[in-house]
Amino acid sequence: MSWIDDKARSELAIVRENKERQTYPYFREFESGGLHTSVGGKPIINFSSNDYLGLTNHPKVKAAANAAVEKYGCGLSSSRPQATTTEHVELEKRLAKWFGYESCLLFTTGYQAMLGTIVALADKDTTLVLDSYSHACILDGTFLAAGIPGRAPEVRFFNHNSAKSLERILKTRERKNALVLIEGVYSLDGDKANIKEFVEICERYDAVLVMDDAHGTGTLGTRGTGILEETGLKDRVPVLVSTFSKTFGGIGGILLGRSDIVELVKHNARSFLFSASLPVPVVAAASTILDMLETDGPAMVTELHQKAAYMRGKLKDIGFELGASNTHIMPVMCREERKTVFMHIGLFESGVMMVPLIYPSVKHGEERLRVNVTRGHTQEDMDTALELLKTYGEAFFVLSGEEIGPMEA
Amino acid sequence: MSWIDDKARSELAIVRENKERQTYPYFREFESGGLHTSVGGKPIINFSSNDYLGLTNHPKVKAAANAAVEKYGCGLSSSRPQATTTEHVELEKRLAKWFGYESCLLFTTGYQAMLGTIVALADKDTTLVLDSYSHACILDGTFLAAGIPGRAPEVRFFNHNSAKSLERILKTRERKNALVLIEGVYSLDGDKANIKEFVEICERYDAVLVMDDAHGTGTLGTRGTGILEETGLKDRVPVLVSTFSKTFGGIGGILLGRSDIVELVKHNARSFLFSASLPVPVVAAASTILDMLETDGPAMVTELHQKAAYMRGKLKDIGFELGASNTHIMPVMCREERKTVFMHIGLFESGVMMVPLIYPSVKHGEERLRVNVTRGHTQEDMDTALELLKTYGEAFFVLSGEEIGPMEA
Repeated sequence: MSWIDDKARSELAIVRENKERQTYPYFREFESGGLHTSVGGKPIINFSSNDYLGLTNHPKVKAAANAAVEKYGCGLSSSRPQATTTEHVELEKRLAKWFGYESCLLFTTGYQAMLGTIVALADKDTTLVLDSYSHACILDGTFLAAGIPGRAPEVRFFNHNSAKSLERILKTRERKNALVLIEGVYSLDGDKANIKEFVEICERYDAVLVMDDAHGTGTLGTRGTGILEETGLKDRVPVLVSTFSKTFGGIGGILLGRSDIVELVKHNARSFLFSASLPVPVVAAASTILDMLETDGPAMVTELHQKAAYMRGKLKDIGFELGASNTHIMPVMCREERKTVFMHIGLFESGVMMVPLIYPSVKHGEERLRVNVTRGHTQEDMDTALELLKTYGEAFFVLSGEEIGPMEA
Repeated sequence: MSWIDDKARSELAIVRENKERQTYPYFREFESGGLHTSVGGKPIINFSSNDYLGLTNHPKVKAAANAAVEKYGCGLSSSRPQATTTEHVELEKRLAKWFGYESCLLFTTGYQAMLGTIVALADKDTTLVLDSYSHACILDGTFLAAGIPGRAPEVRFFNHNSAKSLERILKTRERKNALVLIEGVYSLDGDKANIKEFVEICERYDAVLVMDDAHGTGTLGTRGTGILEETGLKDRVPVLVSTFSKTFGGIGGILLGRSDIVELVKHNARSFLFSASLPVPVVAAASTILDMLETDGPAMVTELHQKAAYMRGKLKDIGFELGASNTHIMPVMCREERKTVFMHIGLFESGVMMVPLIYPSVKHGEERLRVNVTRGHTQEDMDTALELLKTYGEAFFVLSGEEIGPMEA
């Protein structure tokens, strides 16, 4: 026994407690992929998936992945400088074109794409400016840059989605070069970035805007290329980061920008240079989904929006609060930890999975279930979920807002 | 144009120069997977692969991956807390047993496994103690930990593989808890950690030893479980990290340790909690390779050692210097940048790929080609490579050590 065991035991107290009370809601073991899976032999409709266009398990996608397994196996046994394939390079070119950027670079994960981009672009002459609701990958990229001896940028946060607050930070920054990090769609609340104002402010203060549009890719804009298509601002955002783990059916990070900027990241990001190449079956799956987006993107995005609008309308009719959401990601506010966890358990036992977000992921009083509507959900899936949400919303006083009182789980 | 374009242009000067001189040796585009691939239609024997037992492209491995593609697709559309499968959990249990640890956790990349482990275990009461030759993932994990406001550990380096130097650091550390990070096999030189001395010193100073055995997994110990099996020290190293991107045929990180320690990382590592789950085809491939290791591990490891011994002997007979190497990873010292790059180009044009390591990856005067011998290389592969190495080693004065003089590439 050493200090590490003491540390582990004390920091795991809450986890242990939740497991003992059987209110630990994570790591359910799926028995198949897709929006319709099973856990312990029982069918589950999954509303916690980011498979926004429902293409991950499309037969064509699987066929392409299988062909790539035959040709390349599941690994290339080294990192990209020593183990690139024609398939990686081809997809990078196609993605650059589809998103409308000069150049593209694939990373093995989205997390690593953001870390590598921040570390390669920021140095001691830089102020990193972050939205206060930034995703873990932006936080970790920032902390990583801040921890490199002799290169640490200044780090400043602005109030979530507030252009005024951003402007105040840019005015008072201490370093010459500003790099502003925002997301197209914030996944806790399902709200969109005030992108137009941010673009204008960044231009005014010669700040470089880096946009993570992981949740906007495939869901926003007529063709589905994201929030920059929806707002017509593509040419005014120099760096775009996205992912394969949502609409694109796999894992992996996508960096887009002018050639020199992408080359700089490609040659400087340790998270790119020293991590094994993205497996080709994953590249092939994403490439096949890109085929579908190129031909049927507009129709698929419309279908997603129709389903999201239906769900949103019905949730509001029932009486749920959806916070700041204006996308297919909808928080069903429960505003109390036990209510949230009981809702989750009730739904799960009835065959519907919606992940609870509780402290410390959200503030006390802002606990919620998160509902991701996707194009792959059927009318019946949504109606089943809505009926259960109403039943449990009443049973656990979410709809009335009354105190839940002491209860045994 | 903004500051970012100026920064990119100036930092890319060396890359641009190398590309213009056609001495840029990276990002060759493979047209198939495996140790025998092709580039531009020309067959290539790859000695830069980490597929140490040559199992990545085994038909059984591909069959398992294909079956998993059918069942799960190439992505689970969320991170592990919301998207775990029975296959992940099953493989974690089997790996814990095979490596001989209480518990195991899979990460989406090895890089993320190391970042998450360091960040979860180190805090302001910790001194992180690193070997001066540490891999990028250990450096980045350390910088990340050091950049988290209010949690930054002390960071200290010791001289590569020097027990004395480590002891000096542990004696003079400023924080209560020490976490010592070493690798089983260092990939630049192919030398093994002085693990026995490190274990003793760590025990003496109540320091927790974290071992990254990425290059030892599948290559050391009778069964191939790594350097701890070879040295009989398993029960004295509390935390082991390894990877799927070498012997295990895919991508992914493996964390092994006592249950509480693994649980602590599982619940605290953002690189685990906020990055999409490892695709099941990759899990299935690794699982099938584990089947093979369980049954034929000893024979396969022996075969690797025989091939490595043959190659080592012949390289020395020819007159090459192999530095500190005592494993299947052998640096062929060229000691000059142009010699190294010309060797690489000559070999590559003749169908053999060996990656050049030049400044800043290694010091000036320590430039080298790296040769990874694997079980998947045939006698003919090795003899072809040896003959070419001899020819170019003479042509470019690597064997004589003479000055190469001014030359046009």
